[in-house]
Amino acid sequence: MPVGLRAPETLLPVSGVRWGTACAAIRQSKRDDVALLECIPETRVAAVFTRNRFVAAPIQLARVHLEVQSPRALVVNSGVANAGTGEAGYHDAERICQAVAKQINVATEQVLPFSTGVIGERLPVDRIVARVRQCGERLRADGWLHAARAIMTTDTVPKGVSVQTVLGGKTVTITGVAKGAGMICPNMATMLAYIATDASVVQSVLQTCLEHVIAQSFHRITVDGDTSTNDACVLLATGAARQSSITTLDHPDYPAFTQALTSVANTLAQAIVRDAEGATKFVEIAVTGGTTEADCLRVAYTIAHSPLVKTAFYASDPNWGRLLAAVGRSGASNLDISKVSIRINNQSIVTGGEVAPTYTEALGQSAMADEELLVSVDLGAGDEQAAIWTCDLSNEYVRINAEYRT
Amino acid sequence: MPVGLRAPETLLPVSGVRWGTACAAIRQSKRDDVALLECIPETRVAAVFTRNRFVAAPIQLARVHLEVQSPRALVVNSGVANAGTGEAGYHDAERICQAVAKQINVATEQVLPFSTGVIGERLPVDRIVARVRQCGERLRADGWLHAARAIMTTDTVPKGVSVQTVLGGKTVTITGVAKGAGMICPNMATMLAYIATDASVVQSVLQTCLEHVIAQSFHRITVDGDTSTNDACVLLATGAARQSSITTLDHPDYPAFTQALTSVANTLAQAIVRDAEGATKFVEIAVTGGTTEADCLRVAYTIAHSPLVKTAFYASDPNWGRLLAAVGRSGASNLDISKVSIRINNQSIVTGGEVAPTYTEALGQSAMADEELLVSVDLGAGDEQAAIWTCDLSNEYVRINAEYRT
Repeated sequence: MPVGLRAPETLLPVSGVRWGTACAAIRQSKRDDVALLECIPETRVAAVFTRNRFVAAPIQLARVHLEVQSPRALVVNSGVANAGTGEAGYHDAERICQAVAKQINVATEQVLPFSTGVIGERLPVDRIVARVRQCGERLRADGWLHAARAIMTTDTVPKGVSVQTVLGGKTVTITGVAKGAGMICPNMATMLAYIATDASVVQSVLQTCLEHVIAQSFHRITVDGDTSTNDACVLLATGAARQSSITTLDHPDYPAFTQALTSVANTLAQAIVRDAEGATKFVEIAVTGGTTEADCLRVAYTIAHSPLVKTAFYASDPNWGRLLAAVGRSGASNLDISKVSIRINNQSIVTGGEVAPTYTEALGQSAMADEELLVSVDLGAGDEQAAIWTCDLSNEYVRINAEYRT
Repeated sequence: MPVGLRAPETLLPVSGVRWGTACAAIRQSKRDDVALLECIPETRVAAVFTRNRFVAAPIQLARVHLEVQSPRALVVNSGVANAGTGEAGYHDAERICQAVAKQINVATEQVLPFSTGVIGERLPVDRIVARVRQCGERLRADGWLHAARAIMTTDTVPKGVSVQTVLGGKTVTITGVAKGAGMICPNMATMLAYIATDASVVQSVLQTCLEHVIAQSFHRITVDGDTSTNDACVLLATGAARQSSITTLDHPDYPAFTQALTSVANTLAQAIVRDAEGATKFVEIAVTGGTTEADCLRVAYTIAHSPLVKTAFYASDPNWGRLLAAVGRSGASNLDISKVSIRINNQSIVTGGEVAPTYTEALGQSAMADEELLVSVDLGAGDEQAAIWTCDLSNEYVRINAEYRT
């Protein structure tokens, strides 16, 4: 069960973008598993991919295509990741792009392919290619929720959000969908996110903005420390709103656009954690008082990746010893445990590196019982801060990942 | 159930060392939970402690005592770690040392205290002090197995081993005991290990030798990536064998002594992994072909710490994609995935960064079905290598750590 997360009731269309989906029965036959996005020729596209050195075939091909031409279409399948499939897998991704190109009458290099699912298996390319036509025939502006469903793997709910803001007197829309579930870590995850806006933004600004926003959103979530081979986030700006184009980082509308995009990205990133495999708690770890932001992140990730801390979250166990032990081994500079304080949902747990004088087990358990936890760590060493989002480690996580392929 | 591990049938006495144990009912009343080691005055002592910056009170005090005088006694309790207990906890550890000193007629500074168990609770000092006398009365040369049992926490079997070797024509004995179970990671763990020998070795050589051996044994195991606040390994050399004393690192007997000590340390380190919380598989991860040893270790630990890989081990799932994804995000230098090959128990799984041509799911599952797995990763980048030992991640691990305090 996802933590405090429901399927979006409605996602706003973005002028210039249409989605069509179909079922190619890649790993199941009950729902659509191929999604096609088509955008108008004026669309500017920015993208960020996994930093894993083991890169899936579609990501390799998408990078090549992006160098050649500005994209007109994205094609995404769930069920099989087309990773570790070598030249054959690369050719499979090419064939799918060719089919899409033919269907919507663009160049093959204008199609970006994406896959998510099991690593090391070949795609059923014939079945996918056979469904590309259906995707093309079903293209519609209000296809976002269908797309959000089609890209799911072990996700339990579709993830999407729309935000509107006014830029230069015109209302612009930003709508995004994402999938996550497992293998979530900084530097992207088994995470696919597609965000589109009808705002007019030049490509270089769009790319800078996306990288900036991702660093504060998708790169701040972790489920299990694993970085996937297939992660990608694509941001499309169709320009159909025809507001004064954001041409530089100094443009007066850049801050408002960045803020709206951040809101979309944060909602999607947090939705991924809320629906993480087996998650029963949604946990924000906010570290303050560090000498550097990097130190704060080091402490936050050491806590978030500790299986002992994560199982304590699962058990609603206010095991502050495990928290303090994680802080202690984080490698943060200038770390003086006697200056560290920790609060959980505003309940003081640790002060001066020891259990807080006001702390009682009953108070600790009461704070931990919540489904949403804010773990605030103050290092007492400096003025920097950083926050990340994570979840607990449950029996269900082990069950899902031990049984995923069976 | 530990993996391929039984309680030792016999542990050889070490001349000059005696153990006595008693039950102080710290967390349970069914077995002894306090152990006292007494050694003869000539004994030389080396020690290595946790690198966690959050250091338990007994470790803080042991470090102070070691600076003052050479130890004559060790006192260990299980059940409560006396960590995060501030000045009061430090004073508790002092009181226990005082009681031991009085019992066996040595200076308080000649007693080193150790605790393992739950963090953040005070020790029942009065009950422990009341049992020190019983420990003293029960001191015996063949008390090693009793000691191995008394220091256990979530361990399911006592861990110990004896090795004999001939140095300068005289047979010397090395016997060690250890406890582990959870919170196991490089840089020591909730790991206590006490090793004694009747060989004569000067203190500086003993310390160098211990640090060298630990780097290749206890620092090469990982269960869950967590480093404990209480880890310690102590090596005592009583000199009672009266062989030609090992006075320098160039001494002709130094290599043989180091080899014997390595054998003891490796057996104890592997026993800790074999009895790790919830472990159902014992896994060696051997990385070859790295540019540096550090790169090999980086790859090995990234694999060993990946919850996705660990759950695949648990499921006996030959999920080579997860292995390759872990290699890919390890951050090893000069990493070229197309040169990486992986074998599991001599079954070729990955060659040239892709699934091996000879590989079938049936062969992979057959290789993974074994309780003992050797995962061999060749990076194809250089001549360096490193191996570590780890285990799988099971439902039982989550259960144990979610319920440990309840």
